Amino acid sequence: MIHEDAPPMHVHVALVHHPVRNRHGEVIATAVTNLDIHDLARTGRTYDVHTTWMVTPLEQQRSLVERIVGHWRKGEGQTYNPIRAEAFARLGVAENIESVIENITEESGKRPLVVGTGAAVQENAITYEACRRQIASSTGSLLILFGTGWGLIDEVMDSCDLLLPGIEAVAGRNGYNHLSVRAAVAIILDRLLGNRVHDPP
Amino acid sequence: MIHEDAPPMHVHVALVHHPVRNRHGEVIATAVTNLDIHDLARTGRTYDVHTTWMVTPLEQQRSLVERIVGHWRKGEGQTYNPIRAEAFARLGVAENIESVIENITEESGKRPLVVGTGAAVQENAITYEACRRQIASSTGSLLILFGTGWGLIDEVMDSCDLLLPGIEAVAGRNGYNHLSVRAAVAIILDRLLGNRVHDPP
Repeated sequence: MIHEDAPPMHVHVALVHHPVRNRHGEVIATAVTNLDIHDLARTGRTYDVHTTWMVTPLEQQRSLVERIVGHWRKGEGQTYNPIRAEAFARLGVAENIESVIENITEESGKRPLVVGTGAAVQENAITYEACRRQIASSTGSLLILFGTGWGLIDEVMDSCDLLLPGIEAVAGRNGYNHLSVRAAVAIILDRLLGNRVHDPP
Repeated sequence: MIHEDAPPMHVHVALVHHPVRNRHGEVIATAVTNLDIHDLARTGRTYDVHTTWMVTPLEQQRSLVERIVGHWRKGEGQTYNPIRAEAFARLGVAENIESVIENITEESGKRPLVVGTGAAVQENAITYEACRRQIASSTGSLLILFGTGWGLIDEVMDSCDLLLPGIEAVAGRNGYNHLSVRAAVAIILDRLLGNRVHDPP
């Protein structure tokens, strides 16, 4: 049941650069890219995500993200493109997933529900519709983890409270699922938070 | 009514680099980026798009796209990453929108239904659900146009057979809609073609 007067959950997104797998299944730290920062900031702001976290254990990479964020929040970027600056107002940087969880817990007073995503996830996954209903009908925070490279390692997936199924193409027509993480974040946020006012229920 | 034995429409996507607007409303040609090619090829292949077209009047840019596509289809890319190569098998290059339409008409024997997209479109737009039903229940081809830069010019939008509404965030919670074209393509293809097997109707 949806309580009209209760606020929906705060949704957080984390783009995880470690621990993730490479194409050989090895655990690596991927490089943060400027384009991921921009695309995720814009998508997150559009879907009213509370904070989009860039997660990397590499201090140099965290400094790089902070410099880019600073440029857009307070520097020349703010004057050049205030719309982009607005997206960057909701960007966070963290050393690891646990530190994101601690930060949210500290701010909100309650541990977030942690949701794992991956191209191959099917077992034990909840449906997008069930997750959407939970966001609309609960309070507290939801943290959605996205892995770069070849995806989050099993230990991270196992530690999640919930898993979302992999994004499938049209049933029976295709067997290919190799989206960029930028596309996956956009699709999943739209499935969980997108406005359906134009569509019949 | 959906005819089980009739094939659904072939969906084509065109990423238009001209004629589009810049931030001042002037008509320009944007530069093709390597990342747009990769992201759209992967998203298009995942959603079983017939062909993803890169549209630019600049010959040098078309040559660049063809070189990149060749690298992945037949060159070192094919050996390095056959999954990526598969996505590139469905990439096309064209000088302008009319030439994409001619090409589809020639191949399929029938002019495609041309669909315009834009962040601000609301008037005269059909719903995503109606467009989804049309794809599932019709034959022939559907060509969805996406503008780079600040979007397709009015003359192009006016010439479209159908318009899709702008992607809105959660109703009543937000007023920001500045997605990257990569995110917009992913979200719109998921709304029109995404598998809903996990979700109740």
